[in-house]
Amino acid sequence: MPEDNVIYVGNKPVMNYVLAAVTQFNEGAKEVTIKARGRAISRAVDTAEVVRNRFLMDVTIDKIQIGTEELKSEKGDSIKVSSIEIFLKRNV
Amino acid sequence: MPEDNVIYVGNKPVMNYVLAAVTQFNEGAKEVTIKARGRAISRAVDTAEVVRNRFLMDVTIDKIQIGTEELKSEKGDSIKVSSIEIFLKRNV
Repeated sequence: MPEDNVIYVGNKPVMNYVLAAVTQFNEGAKEVTIKARGRAISRAVDTAEVVRNRFLMDVTIDKIQIGTEELKSEKGDSIKVSSIEIFLKRNV
Repeated sequence: MPEDNVIYVGNKPVMNYVLAAVTQFNEGAKEVTIKARGRAISRAVDTAEVVRNRFLMDVTIDKIQIGTEELKSEKGDSIKVSSIEIFLKRNV
């Protein structure tokens, strides 16, 4: 899957990410991955739910993975944060 | 799976839920489900990650499901919130 079918969810309103995902599907993507870290994880789940329940009924959740990523703080300490990847698939 | 192997993650510190899950496994549970709604979803992911990476290395993620639940507000309106269920399994 090309890397440009990935939506990174951050602190913007959910609808921004929903529209980004819907746009990618409407431009022909068969799969879109929604990724987030830390507190944005809840928003990534919201994004996936809104895409499949309100916009594209033929999109399903193919797989969900969670993990832990290690980030460097400004001081050079390492901080562990949880991450999520939600793989959405359009069933044509 | 009996309902008492479910940990509901809310607003307490992550370690509370981690210890609840570890205790259930140590009391013999083969599977523990971690559930959360709304903003607590990130904390549910943290809980699963800490359990399997720091406490019980033989615990793996069996399945992850996300969904949408409808809650009634005090005024009687219905509000939709995202939910997550993380199914953890101990590999004996």
